[in-house]
Amino acid sequence: MITAKARAVDGPDKPFRAAEITRRDLDSNDVLIEIKYAGICHSDIHTAHGEWGEVNYPLVPGHEIAGVVTAVGPDVTKYKIGDRVGVGCMVDSCGECKNCHKGEEQYCLKGNVPTYAGVDKYGEPTQGGYSTHIVVTEDFVVKIPDNIPLDAAAPLLCAGITTYSPLNHWDAGQGKKVAVVGMGGLGHMAVKIAHAMGAEVTVLSQSLKKKEDGLEFGADDYYATSDPETFTKLAGTFDLIINTVSAKIDINAYFSLLALDGTLVNVGAPAEPLSVNVFSLIPHRRSFAGSMIGGIRETQEMLNFCAEHNIVPKIEVISADQIDEAYERVLASDVKYRFVIDTSTI
Amino acid sequence: MITAKARAVDGPDKPFRAAEITRRDLDSNDVLIEIKYAGICHSDIHTAHGEWGEVNYPLVPGHEIAGVVTAVGPDVTKYKIGDRVGVGCMVDSCGECKNCHKGEEQYCLKGNVPTYAGVDKYGEPTQGGYSTHIVVTEDFVVKIPDNIPLDAAAPLLCAGITTYSPLNHWDAGQGKKVAVVGMGGLGHMAVKIAHAMGAEVTVLSQSLKKKEDGLEFGADDYYATSDPETFTKLAGTFDLIINTVSAKIDINAYFSLLALDGTLVNVGAPAEPLSVNVFSLIPHRRSFAGSMIGGIRETQEMLNFCAEHNIVPKIEVISADQIDEAYERVLASDVKYRFVIDTSTI
Repeated sequence: MITAKARAVDGPDKPFRAAEITRRDLDSNDVLIEIKYAGICHSDIHTAHGEWGEVNYPLVPGHEIAGVVTAVGPDVTKYKIGDRVGVGCMVDSCGECKNCHKGEEQYCLKGNVPTYAGVDKYGEPTQGGYSTHIVVTEDFVVKIPDNIPLDAAAPLLCAGITTYSPLNHWDAGQGKKVAVVGMGGLGHMAVKIAHAMGAEVTVLSQSLKKKEDGLEFGADDYYATSDPETFTKLAGTFDLIINTVSAKIDINAYFSLLALDGTLVNVGAPAEPLSVNVFSLIPHRRSFAGSMIGGIRETQEMLNFCAEHNIVPKIEVISADQIDEAYERVLASDVKYRFVIDTSTI
Repeated sequence: MITAKARAVDGPDKPFRAAEITRRDLDSNDVLIEIKYAGICHSDIHTAHGEWGEVNYPLVPGHEIAGVVTAVGPDVTKYKIGDRVGVGCMVDSCGECKNCHKGEEQYCLKGNVPTYAGVDKYGEPTQGGYSTHIVVTEDFVVKIPDNIPLDAAAPLLCAGITTYSPLNHWDAGQGKKVAVVGMGGLGHMAVKIAHAMGAEVTVLSQSLKKKEDGLEFGADDYYATSDPETFTKLAGTFDLIINTVSAKIDINAYFSLLALDGTLVNVGAPAEPLSVNVFSLIPHRRSFAGSMIGGIRETQEMLNFCAEHNIVPKIEVISADQIDEAYERVLASDVKYRFVIDTSTI
């Protein structure tokens, strides 16, 4: 057993505390990673607060992990000691179902193993990246290109792939009009990536407060959704809308912004169901879809794409003692645009 | 002005009565059609009963029209006297917007002109196919292939194209698993067409009452949705689901039947909104879409496809005096599978 320092939470209303956790000894295909940085994702907060179902506390969240390989199992072929690597939202899958065979492990028919709050193939609970070390089978490790700093790389492993995957799947690119709903951690990445793909990008944010940032990230237009005129002016405009907002919104109003054959993709999910008026989908053969992170091959592709286009998230690096405060600031939308924990402070 | 005999309804609760209506004199591109048969679509009933918004009575419904050309305007090039032709749900569109240019006139950005309960470019209310004659611009007329009898051709103009279009658009065919929800006028056409396209077809009907018919129409499997086991057994199975039911159903249960990247397409729309749990779309990148009839070019393609594959709807021909009774029987699901009015009885 390998011991690692971590920050854990003991219940929905409890603060984070220093903890010592164990990681399994390296199996033949395992990689030991010294974690350097871990991003704070809104999912961490939902899970830590017990909002997404029962949690086995103590819990160590974190699925935006960037670090360096410090040991490898005897059969590892893809990585060597010293490699700069990342781990995202999952650490294993069955590897045998048709979705895994397609490289879409996030949709594994037997269920993938989430990086934290899951159970691995040994029957042990998984613990995430707010920690100094993690052991992961090499197939669920990706390489971080040299020109992406490790701190900025961390959020790419969830916020990056979660937005890249639908933009890629629904062919955002030259000649396409893409709207991004919400300018938070995911939204700001969606803007940067869609712009780099060549699409015409519009941000739909509650207010114009972050307009300057949005245009700097590559948006061509920026509208406030609090202004009802936005919806009349932009009716029937977009080929693709990426909705990064997981609060309950009037989704029908957003459908009306889609052009013929347009798709609105939710990458977040409100806890309550949405009220969908089918008459708002039928008129222009519109679609409402969901998308969840991306496969491992696509995650590597996304990292390479970001390296090639010099795309990194805008981050605020914090120390381990600031996690609780960071959670509060995320909930208050007071973050530009992602908190990243410097794990040397754990 | 051309006078025509018709059957009209004077209000939401009124019976049909014999009426005389006028059709415009032929414009240079107009075709005069002697209507031989008119199908009864569920939309006729919704509209006649005033359930889809305000209606200017008296109303002559009917948008499944099959007949013969009896006169043509001087600039008509596509049709000549004696041609067997059909008219569907729309009789005009702007012809200039990008959707019209794509041949998707049903999604005309200025709004197409519906065959009845609409207003044409002359500012006159449109009246439908429960009538002996109609005048339509040639671009909205289609040719009925010789081997399709006129009575059976009528329902193809709405029920046929409404199901063909999404099956075509979402690539139903060899290697695809397609489910059809509902075995009524639209559903039975969807089964026949999807089967002819080469897809593996499953019917999801409330009961097994029409199972024998479904298998005869080309279904490979037939399940009752009243049996909860249907939903566990078929979870994650289908690439495409065509939902022909316009009543409010638990749509999330049907999403769970979709495989990776599967799409559920509603061709009918319940009056009330549906409650969509986004967590049922996200796991396998599922989509929920709407589709409305099809363009004129695609309608002709559908007729040619049906002719080539010997596909016709199963119909019950009635006289004009039986319209009220037929409406009641449609509402009681007592129709196999489409009523068609013999307009010589008008």
